[in-house]
Amino acid sequence: MFSGCQFSLYPVTDRFVQIILGALEVLKGRTDARIETDDISTLIVGPSEQVFAAVQAVFLKACAETDHVVINATFSRGCPGEPDDPICQPDSATKSDAAKAVAIEDLTKLESSGVPVKAQFALYPLGVPDYMDTIYAEIEATKTEGVFKRGKHFVTRIGGDANQVFAALQAAFDRAAEHAEHVVLTTTLLHDVPIII
Amino acid sequence: MFSGCQFSLYPVTDRFVQIILGALEVLKGRTDARIETDDISTLIVGPSEQVFAAVQAVFLKACAETDHVVINATFSRGCPGEPDDPICQPDSATKSDAAKAVAIEDLTKLESSGVPVKAQFALYPLGVPDYMDTIYAEIEATKTEGVFKRGKHFVTRIGGDANQVFAALQAAFDRAAEHAEHVVLTTTLLHDVPIII
Repeated sequence: MFSGCQFSLYPVTDRFVQIILGALEVLKGRTDARIETDDISTLIVGPSEQVFAAVQAVFLKACAETDHVVINATFSRGCPGEPDDPICQPDSATKSDAAKAVAIEDLTKLESSGVPVKAQFALYPLGVPDYMDTIYAEIEATKTEGVFKRGKHFVTRIGGDANQVFAALQAAFDRAAEHAEHVVLTTTLLHDVPIII
Repeated sequence: MFSGCQFSLYPVTDRFVQIILGALEVLKGRTDARIETDDISTLIVGPSEQVFAAVQAVFLKACAETDHVVINATFSRGCPGEPDDPICQPDSATKSDAAKAVAIEDLTKLESSGVPVKAQFALYPLGVPDYMDTIYAEIEATKTEGVFKRGKHFVTRIGGDANQVFAALQAAFDRAAEHAEHVVLTTTLLHDVPIII
């Protein structure tokens, strides 16, 4: 089973190059995930817990450097067109992560990262007829978890501390995998700081 | 049938606010699509030809103002959870657009916009078991159309003039709707200008 994420970081500042390259530094030396960067996005391949943690680390590093940062990410697992990759194993670890995520009911009790985020996400369980049930269940879960803000067309707005929001996204991604082999989750996260016009 | 797009514009410059607001000005006064903007993304609701044209117009306006601009967009049609909307009709127009798109074999023959773009996209035909066939067919189509660059994990790199790239994306989106009621296409487009570090 192949799992990972393509993500892009957008610090909306003239210093975007140094902030992107600086944030990606946090991935250097990781042996629990495979990393590839090109001029559009960075790929992280590994089990979901490592992948979400890595994307969060990059985002928090960028937020520490500048106020106005967005990260856009596509998490995917089980795509039939992707090769198997040993780094995505053991599946047992991923499954226990999923179980752990399911066990967290109110994510607002998580320790704070100190970084507030606004976000929206969409979930795509592929190849199964009852995919809307999975999507609706995960939207409901964000309410229990304390991160739901409101529905929008095509996406759901969530928000809170970065630790809560990333945990909610990982939980949705992991739980959806119980209902479809191939699951994609797309998300946009914004560092929630006032914009002075 | 409900169709539209949520998109976000990221001019990576200190002047991001004025460039975003300026680019969104091109949507003012449109009566062929419904527009809603919040602090994460802008929604355009309408038939696919109008929606793709509107997103392209916003992107080109931003590219005219600054070099380093990214647009990230989620196009969706036929989501069972969305209300019907008269503005998304007539379907007959959309269908004839789709037929027109299919008829364009080599998009490099399109008139140039003068704006080169690098892009990647992913297609999600939902609720059907043979969705990978549709995805593979649309990746092949980008080769015929002259915009294919290379495969990546989870996405396909394409590139060329903005007119070609947007036409290829719309064609993939429209054709995929022949195989699934609910189709989502996500894409990231980058104004292809050198980055001086």
